[in-house]
Amino acid sequence: MSGCGRLIGVGVGPGDPELLTLKALRYLKAADVVAHFAKKGNESHARATVAEYLLPGVHDLPLRYPVTTEVAKNTPTYREVIEHFFDASAESISKHLDAGRTVAVICEGDPLFYGSYMHLHVRLAPRYQTEVVAGVTGMSGCWSSTGTPIAQGDDVFSVLPATLPEVELERRFVDVDAAVFMKIGHHLPKVRRVLEKTGRLCRAIYVERGTMSGASAMPLSDKHDDCAPYFAVVLVPGWERRS
Amino acid sequence: MSGCGRLIGVGVGPGDPELLTLKALRYLKAADVVAHFAKKGNESHARATVAEYLLPGVHDLPLRYPVTTEVAKNTPTYREVIEHFFDASAESISKHLDAGRTVAVICEGDPLFYGSYMHLHVRLAPRYQTEVVAGVTGMSGCWSSTGTPIAQGDDVFSVLPATLPEVELERRFVDVDAAVFMKIGHHLPKVRRVLEKTGRLCRAIYVERGTMSGASAMPLSDKHDDCAPYFAVVLVPGWERRS
Repeated sequence: MSGCGRLIGVGVGPGDPELLTLKALRYLKAADVVAHFAKKGNESHARATVAEYLLPGVHDLPLRYPVTTEVAKNTPTYREVIEHFFDASAESISKHLDAGRTVAVICEGDPLFYGSYMHLHVRLAPRYQTEVVAGVTGMSGCWSSTGTPIAQGDDVFSVLPATLPEVELERRFVDVDAAVFMKIGHHLPKVRRVLEKTGRLCRAIYVERGTMSGASAMPLSDKHDDCAPYFAVVLVPGWERRS
Repeated sequence: MSGCGRLIGVGVGPGDPELLTLKALRYLKAADVVAHFAKKGNESHARATVAEYLLPGVHDLPLRYPVTTEVAKNTPTYREVIEHFFDASAESISKHLDAGRTVAVICEGDPLFYGSYMHLHVRLAPRYQTEVVAGVTGMSGCWSSTGTPIAQGDDVFSVLPATLPEVELERRFVDVDAAVFMKIGHHLPKVRRVLEKTGRLCRAIYVERGTMSGASAMPLSDKHDDCAPYFAVVLVPGWERRS
């Protein structure tokens, strides 16, 4: 351990400030530094979720993605830019840790489930005392707010990024009982086709903004346009054999 | 709506009482009745998790499974016994709801993710005002307490019940980037064989009791016996292409 500070990955849940855990709240109040990822020019969702709980005097450390969609993913340029960004972010946090401070990295949902925090975790956990506070995932927020029992008994449940090629998405979906399609955005027509072909469009629920303000949900078959934000999800509940 | 009471499905998280959400705590304190599922002769885990938060005078309503493993699942006898039990449980809750009381059904993890609460939800939600409070899942507790980044980017993530036949388990596992095998119990040798055959035993982490007291975790390749409780899990992290 090269420093005496502490790194805490804090899951702040799906957006409703009341879905923060007691442990997350305790660590937020004990932190010297609160770090959070955000797009350039946008406030971090995680930061907005916990705004009411932050003590005056806490050091705010925004980590701003240099690119989001301007550069195609899976290109060497994107990888280089983003890896450099995570290196630099870890470095700026390590300075606080070396000075003995407690740094809480706040994360939407759950830190180790599709979260950017894990890029810091793998760089810093080998060198500093680290703890991860599990959070309610965005998708749990979505099926709870819509009252949708998602999986039961021996159901196989899958998270399917809608960014996958259509043939891949269909092959994997056909083999599961319950699923969440995530990263919908402009992939909505593709997800709709997969659901139609597999006969499960009638079970699918489209959810936008989960437990955040302005949330909305509807049967996907009732949605007549293809406009969807990147973070929208489509829920396909399992438990089909229930009496 | 046939009664003026309120039904709340309250996720209490993976076992650490501090992983309760602020919303769950508020509803627990506002409830007239706290209901919970448990095996005959055992205290409910959910009840134990929230014991310190319950106000004196709250009505405790244990719902005791008539059978757990004594009768084979997927037999008509099991289905009949268990359906009758859920009917009777819903009925006993509806009496409180009809009397205008608020009933919190406390659930380990997240209520609508492989939880018994959903059997009550489908029976009662059509008739009563109902809300579901999302909780931190048991599996989030496991990958967080072991500091295991589970899925990233375009990873496909699956929950695989170890109760499935070996050939089914292997076929589904081979097609995902990240997985949680759950309901391990006496299925551990089968899960180990699937991991060996697919070359991923070296990545698997065995976790017992998650964030509860007496928790333990180790690389599965270091576990030299086949003793595992039913609720143990095996984590297989994705994110294999990371630099």
